[in-house]
Amino acid sequence: MKKQLLALQEYLAQNDLDIAYISNPNDINYFTGFYSDPVERILALLVFPDKDPFLFAPQLEVGSAKEAGWDKDVFGYLDHEDPFALMANHIKDVNGIPNNWGIEKDDLPVQKLEAIKQQFPKAQFPTNLSRYMENAKLIKTDSEIEELKAAGAEADYAFTVAFNAIKEGRTEQEVVAEINYAMMKKGVMHMSFDTIVQAGANAANPHGGPEKNPIKKDELVLFDLGTVHNGYISDASRTVAFGKPDEKSLDIYKVDLEAQYAAMDAAKPGITAAKLDKVARDIITKAGYGEYFIHRLGHGMGMSEHEFPSIMEGNDMVLKPGMCFSIEPGIYIPNVAGVRIEDCVYITEDGCEPFTHTSKELKYID
Amino acid sequence: MKKQLLALQEYLAQNDLDIAYISNPNDINYFTGFYSDPVERILALLVFPDKDPFLFAPQLEVGSAKEAGWDKDVFGYLDHEDPFALMANHIKDVNGIPNNWGIEKDDLPVQKLEAIKQQFPKAQFPTNLSRYMENAKLIKTDSEIEELKAAGAEADYAFTVAFNAIKEGRTEQEVVAEINYAMMKKGVMHMSFDTIVQAGANAANPHGGPEKNPIKKDELVLFDLGTVHNGYISDASRTVAFGKPDEKSLDIYKVDLEAQYAAMDAAKPGITAAKLDKVARDIITKAGYGEYFIHRLGHGMGMSEHEFPSIMEGNDMVLKPGMCFSIEPGIYIPNVAGVRIEDCVYITEDGCEPFTHTSKELKYID
Repeated sequence: MKKQLLALQEYLAQNDLDIAYISNPNDINYFTGFYSDPVERILALLVFPDKDPFLFAPQLEVGSAKEAGWDKDVFGYLDHEDPFALMANHIKDVNGIPNNWGIEKDDLPVQKLEAIKQQFPKAQFPTNLSRYMENAKLIKTDSEIEELKAAGAEADYAFTVAFNAIKEGRTEQEVVAEINYAMMKKGVMHMSFDTIVQAGANAANPHGGPEKNPIKKDELVLFDLGTVHNGYISDASRTVAFGKPDEKSLDIYKVDLEAQYAAMDAAKPGITAAKLDKVARDIITKAGYGEYFIHRLGHGMGMSEHEFPSIMEGNDMVLKPGMCFSIEPGIYIPNVAGVRIEDCVYITEDGCEPFTHTSKELKYID
Repeated sequence: MKKQLLALQEYLAQNDLDIAYISNPNDINYFTGFYSDPVERILALLVFPDKDPFLFAPQLEVGSAKEAGWDKDVFGYLDHEDPFALMANHIKDVNGIPNNWGIEKDDLPVQKLEAIKQQFPKAQFPTNLSRYMENAKLIKTDSEIEELKAAGAEADYAFTVAFNAIKEGRTEQEVVAEINYAMMKKGVMHMSFDTIVQAGANAANPHGGPEKNPIKKDELVLFDLGTVHNGYISDASRTVAFGKPDEKSLDIYKVDLEAQYAAMDAAKPGITAAKLDKVARDIITKAGYGEYFIHRLGHGMGMSEHEFPSIMEGNDMVLKPGMCFSIEPGIYIPNVAGVRIEDCVYITEDGCEPFTHTSKELKYID
């Protein structure tokens, strides 16, 4: 059995938990090697302290789960069947009636918890396994870091495509099309999130998508993109100059780059997440742009973009070798321009190494 | 204020609810015209019986929400702030302390419910608004049906690209790349789900993705794809013959098509969802393939693929004009082949009309 599963079993035994109900698709992938987003259907991994785990899945996913290499039981259900009644029978067969449940409270919807309670009226839910998962995934192994490097190399390739795709009159959306097409032709099955291309003032809405407006000369163009490589992601941002942007745009680029370099230098074992955020934020604030840096410095990443550690004010977690996260200061001035420069990195014995290597010196595209 | 919001306010008043907490991104879009998936951040629409609603959003989404046309308040929070404490203050400012909450229990994670309870220790959560939303969206308006037709026309265009893209030696993944590229060049900002291309035996895993294996001659090739048009989706499947598939493959195509036509004929006001499922299932079962039709006949759709009515055994909902759903019988024989033929339709006064019009007679591609 995979060591990740053995570790969870040990955690359950030590914490007097009779069962773990794993519902987050990324975490099911972490334990089983099988990824699927079942949307409103039920996909769950049931783990017990000293019995074999099993998957419970829509019947139409059963074949895919086995092909992905899961060699324990997979029990399927059909759409018209009551999934929680069926699942309860399988649980009782394997392990009797569990009292103390570990569930992923950050993921499990209230309605599904109520359905479990209906099947197991005496069940208690003392433990939020979302916290366990964050810690289990916090320090990446050497082989995980190799996967993340490979994903990073794909992102670097995507930037070369992206920079070549900028042409006067092309829309942001058309540039996205060129990037995604080139990546799929290269065999990248999934981008890790919707590719972002934003030019000029559009980039000041950091979570706004690409638009159908043509990219204009003399503006900054912001790219944020990533790929999925064997279940591990890349995520990186670059901002380039198309023609000759105005002084203000160039100034926020200079400040943001200084902040990004400073944070890359400061990221090493021993510093806290909060202090690392402050290294970048102080530079941006001192330059007068503090109010325009409206998100944390970075997020943990690995199998998804939403892991620990979160690099932000208030997080006193001390950084250690093997932690992986983004360093992505951004400055967004409404109706003017937006800049974000981002690498994901892993902490080494005495510093950090980025997964992406595309130059961050301001690139001018004619 | 939008009539959808007025209707929810009326529902709250009639059901003695002091507040609705809308968390499902599709439902927030339905009420506000603003779509965003905030992932682990908090995006919520707060609605009161007789006060103005407001959006609560990550600060980096505030600009996009306003640009999308939301003209009531948007309150933002920064990553290091406690979102539920801030949100609680805004709620108290607008409406005092609410006792009876309506929440979307199918969507809201347990941890977020616990965070709300911490701010409002006396709060009660008697009502699952997921049921309200399903009913509110059940009957589409004429203008919604126009959007769905436009999305269907995009799917028809995607099929013409798809059929032309099949070439010996090309992988399933490369065909997906051609389809998605052509759609983005045409201005389709999002596909409604990951485009599926599956050839031969790979199609027998209906939720398996496209693979890197080259498509071989003399196999069936299954396509399942859709687009998002002004927030409304299309979703359709076609299966075509590349070369000369074997007799077994041709037989399951014939049976599946007969089942699909029969269900299209039977879909009209007055029949129940369960009976409509049975019309198709009986044909497949009689032909000896019942055990290989491993999902419901169809799902409701509109702003997402997961609306009411669900067309399946056990659902006694009577179909009415304006309901929209898929009709997609499938036959999946492990290690042999898979067939699915799917149109989404809307119920009219005396029958149904499909949103997609690509021919369903078996198409042979050389």
